[in-house]
Amino acid sequence: PLRGKHDERSLVFADLTQDEYVQVQQYMLKQKDLNISTSQVTKPCENFLFLIDLSLPKKAEVLAYLDKNGKKPAREATVVVFHGSKGYIKEYVVSPLPNPTKHRDVTKERYKKDQLPITARTVTIGEYALLFKFFETEVMSKLEKLLKESFDVDQQKTLDMFEQMPRGLQSGDRKTWVSFFRNKSGLYIHPVGFEVLVNHKSLNASEWKVEGVYYNGKYFDSVEQLQHAYNNGSVNKIIYKESPDYGSLKAKNKPLQIGPQLFYADGKRHSVSKNHVLYLDWSFAFGLSSLTGMRVFDVQFKGERIIYELSVQEAMSVYGSVTPGMMLTKFLDSSIGIGRFAHELVRGVDCPYEATFVDTYRYIDAPAPLRFRNSICIFEHNMGQPLRRHFADFFQNSYGGMVNTALVFRTITAIGNYDYMWDFIFYQTGSVEAKVHATGYISSSYLVHGALKHGHQVADKVLGNIHTHFINFKVDLDVQGVKNVFQTKDMQFVNVSVPWKPDHYAMIPHLVETQLKTEKEAALRYNVKTARYLHIASNKTNRWGHQRSYRLQVYSFTGDHLPESESEEKAMSWARYKVAITKHKDLEQTSSSLYSQNDMWDPAVDFSKYIEDNENIEHEDLVAWVTAGFLHIPHAEDIPNTVTVGNGGGVLLRPHNYFDEDPSIHSADAVYFSPG
Amino acid sequence: PLRGKHDERSLVFADLTQDEYVQVQQYMLKQKDLNISTSQVTKPCENFLFLIDLSLPKKAEVLAYLDKNGKKPAREATVVVFHGSKGYIKEYVVSPLPNPTKHRDVTKERYKKDQLPITARTVTIGEYALLFKFFETEVMSKLEKLLKESFDVDQQKTLDMFEQMPRGLQSGDRKTWVSFFRNKSGLYIHPVGFEVLVNHKSLNASEWKVEGVYYNGKYFDSVEQLQHAYNNGSVNKIIYKESPDYGSLKAKNKPLQIGPQLFYADGKRHSVSKNHVLYLDWSFAFGLSSLTGMRVFDVQFKGERIIYELSVQEAMSVYGSVTPGMMLTKFLDSSIGIGRFAHELVRGVDCPYEATFVDTYRYIDAPAPLRFRNSICIFEHNMGQPLRRHFADFFQNSYGGMVNTALVFRTITAIGNYDYMWDFIFYQTGSVEAKVHATGYISSSYLVHGALKHGHQVADKVLGNIHTHFINFKVDLDVQGVKNVFQTKDMQFVNVSVPWKPDHYAMIPHLVETQLKTEKEAALRYNVKTARYLHIASNKTNRWGHQRSYRLQVYSFTGDHLPESESEEKAMSWARYKVAITKHKDLEQTSSSLYSQNDMWDPAVDFSKYIEDNENIEHEDLVAWVTAGFLHIPHAEDIPNTVTVGNGGGVLLRPHNYFDEDPSIHSADAVYFSPG
Ligand SMILES: [Ca+2]
Ligand SMILES: [Ca+2]
Ligand SMILES: [Ca+2]
Ligand SMILES: [Ca+2]
Ligand SMILES: [Cu+2]
Ligand SMILES: [Cu+2]
Repeated sequence: PLRGKHDERSLVFADLTQDEYVQVQQYMLKQKDLNISTSQVTKPCENFLFLIDLSLPKKAEVLAYLDKNGKKPAREATVVVFHGSKGYIKEYVVSPLPNPTKHRDVTKERYKKDQLPITARTVTIGEYALLFKFFETEVMSKLEKLLKESFDVDQQKTLDMFEQMPRGLQSGDRKTWVSFFRNKSGLYIHPVGFEVLVNHKSLNASEWKVEGVYYNGKYFDSVEQLQHAYNNGSVNKIIYKESPDYGSLKAKNKPLQIGPQLFYADGKRHSVSKNHVLYLDWSFAFGLSSLTGMRVFDVQFKGERIIYELSVQEAMSVYGSVTPGMMLTKFLDSSIGIGRFAHELVRGVDCPYEATFVDTYRYIDAPAPLRFRNSICIFEHNMGQPLRRHFADFFQNSYGGMVNTALVFRTITAIGNYDYMWDFIFYQTGSVEAKVHATGYISSSYLVHGALKHGHQVADKVLGNIHTHFINFKVDLDVQGVKNVFQTKDMQFVNVSVPWKPDHYAMIPHLVETQLKTEKEAALRYNVKTARYLHIASNKTNRWGHQRSYRLQVYSFTGDHLPESESEEKAMSWARYKVAITKHKDLEQTSSSLYSQNDMWDPAVDFSKYIEDNENIEHEDLVAWVTAGFLHIPHAEDIPNTVTVGNGGGVLLRPHNYFDEDPSIHSADAVYFSPG
Repeated sequence: PLRGKHDERSLVFADLTQDEYVQVQQYMLKQKDLNISTSQVTKPCENFLFLIDLSLPKKAEVLAYLDKNGKKPAREATVVVFHGSKGYIKEYVVSPLPNPTKHRDVTKERYKKDQLPITARTVTIGEYALLFKFFETEVMSKLEKLLKESFDVDQQKTLDMFEQMPRGLQSGDRKTWVSFFRNKSGLYIHPVGFEVLVNHKSLNASEWKVEGVYYNGKYFDSVEQLQHAYNNGSVNKIIYKESPDYGSLKAKNKPLQIGPQLFYADGKRHSVSKNHVLYLDWSFAFGLSSLTGMRVFDVQFKGERIIYELSVQEAMSVYGSVTPGMMLTKFLDSSIGIGRFAHELVRGVDCPYEATFVDTYRYIDAPAPLRFRNSICIFEHNMGQPLRRHFADFFQNSYGGMVNTALVFRTITAIGNYDYMWDFIFYQTGSVEAKVHATGYISSSYLVHGALKHGHQVADKVLGNIHTHFINFKVDLDVQGVKNVFQTKDMQFVNVSVPWKPDHYAMIPHLVETQLKTEKEAALRYNVKTARYLHIASNKTNRWGHQRSYRLQVYSFTGDHLPESESEEKAMSWARYKVAITKHKDLEQTSSSLYSQNDMWDPAVDFSKYIEDNENIEHEDLVAWVTAGFLHIPHAEDIPNTVTVGNGGGVLLRPHNYFDEDPSIHSADAVYFSPG
């Protein structure tokens, strides 16, 4: 039996429907002056409708609608057009939905620029097709002998490519080192030692050029130079050797006896209707942005909103290597699309068999919206431990406790080599956890002299390269309304005279509470010691007179963040901070952007700017931007896949004097017995 | 179907059987010169057989037996006698078992002292009985009017007591502040504001004295002084008020619909025989020390020993308060006995219904060995997530993965107010995790002026006091034999010229590896930045030429450790270090001791001494002592019980170049599919 009712108003946060995508697409195509193409093989010099995604309504309008019977906010779509013919990118908002009648250019409003440089665009499938052709004619066909002898490439056998980013050294560059890999399962761990730098800045593919070649540890200015060196024996040749299929995930043993499974003897205790979820005392709306990934809104516990928005923002990695591609690699996944790669989840592996699965629809780099079947799963899990318990055998004899079951909301996004598992977990204590775990394939490089400075060998001639994982979450807690403060709590030993023996002193823990006043004060850097307890608090008090608050407890094993001296750092400035608190703004919707990866030197969004105006954060609508992650020094056990155990991070949002007592005491799952 | 066979040699680590306890007890009683009593009401001035516990055999002997067909080590028992008649404590070893024929005094060998001061002994049930009587005659009976008016105490209604420790301010003291609580469920959160300091140092209870009284924030030298002040109105009276039963764990709602349960459709995949466990590729022996709690030995994965010993060592808390008892409170649980309080686990709450439950037997502060039914549980858990997975849609199309199921070995120890849940978890990746979570009742104090400097109010007139939780684990990894080294790995950004554009420099992550040479170098303090990866490594290499190692990944949210300036700190010096590495010694079996709590100022074991000789740790048998924990600032949601979510810590032991690839790739649980 469910508590509460589904609420259709959650649809203000809903992703666009298949119909809505088509309507927006058709509307845009009708704008003849824009001359847009939706074909997947649109050329870089043409105008391509890259993305259609929900444009989130303004928070004030949503709150008026949800809380004050205000009118329903207009439903709008964001459209990203790569205007190849004009050499820029624009963002439009198309409205209203359904049946759109107008559009407006929002580029300036959102990014403080009239237009974004076309070089900042994501490489589309259309551009990839041209790149493949370019490599075929300008590289592969010129190196047949080398490719055959070194890599056994022929008519039947090809190499796979994996690109490194950013694409160059300064703003305006679009020069990509492409690394080659054996065409095997888990190609990412089969590098061959051959990499090519292609300048594909020109919107006319016929002007693209090879600007560098790397083969077995040596650099060449051109394909011809390599060919020449190879033929005259002035380069150490790689001699092809069959290699085992160590990247394969094929089961090596027959299933013997299945492991423990979850079952719902009494049926499910949660319900999903449209984009609204009910679970015991919880309710929330959800969506999946093609760019930033999964998110929940209007998270309520016992009928009170606790979180306005909890969302994935960005996944970033910085690599170290002596090989050219990976040497400078800094991945910003939301520029390719995190949610874009939320594929079907496998029952019994990715989620328990009995989970509820939800389809999603997306329009990104495609001629039409696509359906992604079972790409979100929602299930209640038995955590295998008590949520709380006490056994009393002093004075009183009794036992009370309850098992920890919680609702898990999950997507898994496989972006190239890596698979990130994203979980939002809803506990019966009123806590919400946002967690990420990494699995999938590591990125690797061909093992050459000096490579071991950057990692460990993990297979024959393969180096697993050292790298960082930094993940950013947006946490817009609204604790008893939007006017909140940011507080820290910690302990401090103070030397105190012992009252019954005043000449004796002792160091005694004191509670230290501080309220931070401005955004700069509340930008808590990773490399600086910060208070142990971080709270978003209301001025409203609980029964005992304490400010009602939610605490942010960050779980993280991050490595060092890229030094700010590096010009690429601006595109990932959110990662400086374990937690940064900003005053909420509709126009500060994300900490990163679609355009950051390919113009890291002058990114469309530089998170540190949100803080630079150093606004007052007392009694304001606060947003916490939380960074977690881990340093990854790959090792043999990353072959074939990194495992989730120990490779993750996240943040637990937990009530701290928010209630008058632990709400789980009212759970119907509580167990109690006493003697007699 | 089980891999491997049970191994009876695990019995070298087995706790004493009921028979063995009785044999040792009878043997000791026969030693007429020792004049020992086993009665539960043995007086402090008599000689009491407090404890019988397994005396662990020497490691070298065990390894010879297990690995080299050496002879079975003699089975021996440790016996602790409180020699009240002589004023000291001694430890004896009684052997052989079964049918003991001799004993020897091991006090000097173990503690470098001929004897331990009798004041260092744990308060026995016998002494408690005398203390209760003392309070009845010397305190309660003299304050009938006050107790009735303030606390409604009469013939029918009493107050409960909870003691604070340490017992005094210097070595030799045995002065205890006893705090009074309402006789309700969860007495610990019902303080009444009345505390009494009793000096019970004398072995003759008739010499015990009240040395201080605390009532409603005021100190008095004697019961009489308080009585006088109360009667003449010179003290603010506490007026009794009925208080709600907020400490009750009684279910407040009827069960509605049961949550998800685990089931083993194909039967269990683990087996327990005597003290030996088999689970997939794992095997290990286990035991439960009355003092330190649960432990496993000879942990093997795929037939190779990885861990010689993994054990709980100590649970410590330091409190802050303005009230006299809690002001100086520093609890060291192993001095009361952690394993001692491993009571029956409740099916479906403490462990899943289908878990395997094991009985344990203990002899501590009792006239005979006691059986603790179902006090250990062992179960395989479905962690509700993939252990690893990858979905490939670039170049290759396939899905491979496997669900994360792992074996959990658990006890829960309810020591007074707190319940610690101890888990050792065995993963299919070759990782082992040691975790602790806290639940049960917080300790609290009566809310008086100034109290809020030390915590938050959590109920009417009740302060939840700030405190730390520090937990110590002993991790004796043997990586490919006992000769190991301790290495750290981390990243460092290095400015490097870009090879294809040498005038351009970039900061690139490098791997930094260091081998630490001595115990002092490898004592990694919590307040100093340490390398991110910590490894116990062998000189043997894996297939890729890297030293085979296990990494220690510590999960911790510890507060500040007590400053070393405090004389009590010596008894908890292990908590200075996140990880400390020592050269293994049979005589450095534990980081704490039974005698530490009651003689903190001159503790029988000062862990820092293990390091002080600064031995070489290269190619030696290494032991890692790991400290985890969390700062606890109590809040309303700690009422009635602290919840496990977010309140824990531990260490993950994970293979790092130990194998040539992830061993889970060979699991029969692996799932794979590809198109067509
Ligand atoms: Ca701002
Ligand atoms: Ca907010
Ligand atoms: Ca030593
Ligand atoms: Ca060892
Ligand atoms: Cu990684
Ligand atoms: Cu606590």
